[in-house]
Amino acid sequence: MSQGVSKGQATRQAILGRALDIASVVGLDGVTIGRLAEELQLSKSGLFAHFGSKEALQVDVIGEASRQFVDAVVAPGLREARGEPRVRALIARWLDWEQRPGGCFFASATDELDDRPGPARDALAKAIRDWLDTLAHAARIAVDERHFRADLDVHQFAFEIWGILMADHMYGRFLKDPAHLDRTHVAVEELLARSRHRLRR
Amino acid sequence: MSQGVSKGQATRQAILGRALDIASVVGLDGVTIGRLAEELQLSKSGLFAHFGSKEALQVDVIGEASRQFVDAVVAPGLREARGEPRVRALIARWLDWEQRPGGCFFASATDELDDRPGPARDALAKAIRDWLDTLAHAARIAVDERHFRADLDVHQFAFEIWGILMADHMYGRFLKDPAHLDRTHVAVEELLARSRHRLRR
Repeated sequence: MSQGVSKGQATRQAILGRALDIASVVGLDGVTIGRLAEELQLSKSGLFAHFGSKEALQVDVIGEASRQFVDAVVAPGLREARGEPRVRALIARWLDWEQRPGGCFFASATDELDDRPGPARDALAKAIRDWLDTLAHAARIAVDERHFRADLDVHQFAFEIWGILMADHMYGRFLKDPAHLDRTHVAVEELLARSRHRLRR
Repeated sequence: MSQGVSKGQATRQAILGRALDIASVVGLDGVTIGRLAEELQLSKSGLFAHFGSKEALQVDVIGEASRQFVDAVVAPGLREARGEPRVRALIARWLDWEQRPGGCFFASATDELDDRPGPARDALAKAIRDWLDTLAHAARIAVDERHFRADLDVHQFAFEIWGILMADHMYGRFLKDPAHLDRTHVAVEELLARSRHRLRR
């Protein structure tokens, strides 16, 4: 019985992993039970039994994206030393995540779900807020460690990091600008520098 | 005859205006000849005669967005005094544009067309490059006027402005964060300040 459950869970995980790959490239709306059934050579009725509806499937895909994001970005980042090293590690891991096929799933999905209230939008908003809070909290620790200046607005810091990554997303993914990573590194270093020191006016 | 042409053009303009409104809210893919025919109470065959195909229609919608963007953002910005006043005016007008229903059409459309080579993607990339060049050129003039520091990388400036506006887009449109405009203004003022002065290290 317990083996059955774990096999069922492994199957579910594999299906969601494939669904996330599709969603990262063609968008969440490209993930339909019909398409998944075809790609995985599973029956549509079996997939319906796993996920119930397209919207429930979308919520599960967002959950899978969050799980992978925590594994690939958050957890390794939090293993780094408190303060600026941890902030740098979180940003570097996020940049790696952004270079995956399709770019950052979360960034792309926001535009898709913008005007569609419902559980999928709520799940995505929660995942993004968690990530922005993680960045702000890491910056707060860097203030405590006196790596960053005492009056730094750590939520403003997270806002600006988000912006830099979205510029990287557009220059890299859409404009195919070969300089996008250089521009991103310059912007990140500049943000870190002014998180340590004030401007000379 | 010339009256006929101008009536045809006026009709065409009205159709594209409505198509852009739809695209801004539901995305370019939501703009189909069938939907437009229904909303405008025109015949599908008449619309096909005007636009030919869905992809040709998308290219025309992007053209209409560019025309409106130039009217609303670029032209008024370029009427301001050379240097920082012009840079500020361009950014302020862009922020106004971003607050329209659906947010900035260009920003949303990039994710939709990311992985779809073709004339619509090309038209959108050209429109975005034009705008980034306009920003960089305005910053270059601000350097010449000695409003900005001589060693400013004006393309980096445009990259970072794009990022700030995308953070505004996500915080405002998706997270519905009431502080999004305050955060955006802080980030813009900080970018302008460090375009004038170097960091104290």
